[in-house]
Amino acid sequence: MSSDFSNSHSSPALGIALIGAGVVGGGVLDILKQQQHLLQQRCGHTLNITAVVKRDLTLDERLTPYRDLLSNDWRSAVANPQTDIVVELIGGCTTAAECIRAALAAGKPVVTANKALLAETSNTADDILAYAATQSLPIAHEAAIAGCIPVVKTLRESLAGDSVQAMYGVINGTCNYILTAMEAEQSTFAAALEKAQALGYAEAAPAFDIDGVDTAHKLLLMTRIAFGCHVCMADIPLIGIRDLDYCDIVYARQFNYRIKLLAVAKRVANGTANGPVELRVRPAMVPAAHIMASLEGALNAVTIHSQFSGETLYYGAGAGAHPTATAVVADIVDIARRYKDKRYQSNNGGDSIADNSLTLQQHFSTPFYLRVRVLDKPGVIADIAQILAKQNISIEAINQEAIAADTVDLIILLHESEDAKVEASIAAIMQLAAVTQPVVALPIERLN
Amino acid sequence: MSSDFSNSHSSPALGIALIGAGVVGGGVLDILKQQQHLLQQRCGHTLNITAVVKRDLTLDERLTPYRDLLSNDWRSAVANPQTDIVVELIGGCTTAAECIRAALAAGKPVVTANKALLAETSNTADDILAYAATQSLPIAHEAAIAGCIPVVKTLRESLAGDSVQAMYGVINGTCNYILTAMEAEQSTFAAALEKAQALGYAEAAPAFDIDGVDTAHKLLLMTRIAFGCHVCMADIPLIGIRDLDYCDIVYARQFNYRIKLLAVAKRVANGTANGPVELRVRPAMVPAAHIMASLEGALNAVTIHSQFSGETLYYGAGAGAHPTATAVVADIVDIARRYKDKRYQSNNGGDSIADNSLTLQQHFSTPFYLRVRVLDKPGVIADIAQILAKQNISIEAINQEAIAADTVDLIILLHESEDAKVEASIAAIMQLAAVTQPVVALPIERLN
Repeated sequence: MSSDFSNSHSSPALGIALIGAGVVGGGVLDILKQQQHLLQQRCGHTLNITAVVKRDLTLDERLTPYRDLLSNDWRSAVANPQTDIVVELIGGCTTAAECIRAALAAGKPVVTANKALLAETSNTADDILAYAATQSLPIAHEAAIAGCIPVVKTLRESLAGDSVQAMYGVINGTCNYILTAMEAEQSTFAAALEKAQALGYAEAAPAFDIDGVDTAHKLLLMTRIAFGCHVCMADIPLIGIRDLDYCDIVYARQFNYRIKLLAVAKRVANGTANGPVELRVRPAMVPAAHIMASLEGALNAVTIHSQFSGETLYYGAGAGAHPTATAVVADIVDIARRYKDKRYQSNNGGDSIADNSLTLQQHFSTPFYLRVRVLDKPGVIADIAQILAKQNISIEAINQEAIAADTVDLIILLHESEDAKVEASIAAIMQLAAVTQPVVALPIERLN
Repeated sequence: MSSDFSNSHSSPALGIALIGAGVVGGGVLDILKQQQHLLQQRCGHTLNITAVVKRDLTLDERLTPYRDLLSNDWRSAVANPQTDIVVELIGGCTTAAECIRAALAAGKPVVTANKALLAETSNTADDILAYAATQSLPIAHEAAIAGCIPVVKTLRESLAGDSVQAMYGVINGTCNYILTAMEAEQSTFAAALEKAQALGYAEAAPAFDIDGVDTAHKLLLMTRIAFGCHVCMADIPLIGIRDLDYCDIVYARQFNYRIKLLAVAKRVANGTANGPVELRVRPAMVPAAHIMASLEGALNAVTIHSQFSGETLYYGAGAGAHPTATAVVADIVDIARRYKDKRYQSNNGGDSIADNSLTLQQHFSTPFYLRVRVLDKPGVIADIAQILAKQNISIEAINQEAIAADTVDLIILLHESEDAKVEASIAAIMQLAAVTQPVVALPIERLN
């Protein structure tokens, strides 16, 4: 190793215990191996693997070079005095939580991609983050949100002098792939899901992705960092994509929108600088001309509106072994660069801005798209218009599309309306004898 | 100030000397004032202004609160024992260089937005960066590239484990505004420039922007970080936008492209992992469906292709007081977070990866767009086709557009061709009697 770089005058090796060697773990091994020399230059330390922990010990080609380091004993791997940094990639909430706690107790910084642990088990996560703070150790988790897109770093560092006003994310590649496939191939949700499963873009048990849970996990983590407020999964109203029909995608196009599963965190102005924050995950109409609408396949994007920077957008692969592993390795490098002084604040797992005064708001107002499938009889539009008028909801446009000889879709665009009033109207509309299907209601998000 | 945050147990104030209080400097004062409490929480230090240095001492509303700190004496401001961090925003290369040197000599970290100094004066910049390295001090310059877009941080930190293969940037808001305006208003370059000047998007002396110099400065800084190689302005072939005609924008659309002033840094595969790097700044055709093509007005975007992450993209306001000031403040916060240990490596002004083996390559191969305005006579196409054939250049398509009774534009798309052969062909084409105008040649960049 050359020694003529300011970072590498003294390069004690740092030991990395890799707990979990699945898809992302394998990617981390690839990068640490192929980029060994570069990483030594960039972080001033040689990064050595001290242990590879895996439940079953079958070897594949990727693991063969680590044969002697392989075990299913995470405790020994964490306790190993050669281990300086613990990388938890086993997923799940039980063993992962134990493993992270053990690492922190041993004074070892943690890197993880475990969004479920940090988001789902609110109490466990709060405990672990608080413990990390008392230990002055990071639980770095760039890889937990949107793969290689530097969402955590941007919120915590690049926007450190700014105040986030709104964040919009298309942050689940499975859903985005399915929606893109439905449009491109004019297919039903079921057919597109099946194709996604065949190609490995969706799991055999896809509920976690298609029902929006994974998206909500990521939104929760982003909210915690951007607004510094306590938030748990129950705070995030959640609707997935499984009830979307191909016709909604077509109608969206007619009005110059596209449908995306959108994560939204938005500070309501409310006449004050620190209004409450709205959170939601649900399919939404976004303007077709917006970059967010043009995301194809399994790509992710996050757009952030902040007080001083205005709109910024970050886009890239939201999943996959190597993109996600890049984020894990970036966290390892951040820790290695600060290892000597053990001063990791900006990389802390919890957030230093605990704004306990911030409140969450379940309800929201946006324009809405409604689709009501009805028997084509006189008076139906009048009945629906009356129901909406009763809720003080104002109609922007009504289109009618023939579906069968006696059936039409009424596509109704509403001016900005409170979601509760829209829900109440839908309940009343569903009582009409002419209505043949559940009403589809999608917020129209202007992304500004 | 509350003390119940892990970062703020001890919060000694840090003093900031602001050298230069123009547009960006004013933005920095705004943010430091309005976000004072938040910044204290986020970086663990109160950030105090110790001096505001300005050549002329007239006060405006923004500067009035700093009346007692205002002077035109940057030496005293830097030397002031209360000054811990020096923010250089005066621009230019002479005084700015002296000021940065003085700060480093006094052991004070530097934040700057001065791309001209860091890029144009290659020897001075190399000297200063080397001096900063010996002093173990940063010359942080996130604000020098693309305003609030975190290009420096992404290249240096988020992609620390990755190897950049290619970077494409639309990183000059003035040019992008002019090109967008030409298209939207079907106007000439001159008319669009005039409008940009009237609206403050272009300077009275616009050469620096429209001839691509500013774009090349930014590309140089990005190249230094991404590839760690020595590079100077003479290494970057440069063509601006002033010779573009509205008709080229229209023809681009016909072939599903848009024209952008594009900065390109691309590692040539060349059969090896470490091929040479191509650098260029010139107007190029980019696929209309790519996000880069849809950038409107003064927005900037950078897309990075890297070995492990694939394509990532970053977009936002590339200029303006507050967006640029956000980047300056992010650099201040980064330094403040590490101030106690004075360990700033990852934020270093130079780069720790000095890959002296990397070479630059002036020539490149891409598909090309040619527009040849000719008198409509028999045999012209045959003559041109023969010239191209002689250079072994293969034609993908030829379109003919009538311009006047006796004049047509020949739009010729070339398959991937070496730029030198295209240049040689153009020189020969210009000898044809029927050719009435300089040939327009634009590379077609697929951005992949």
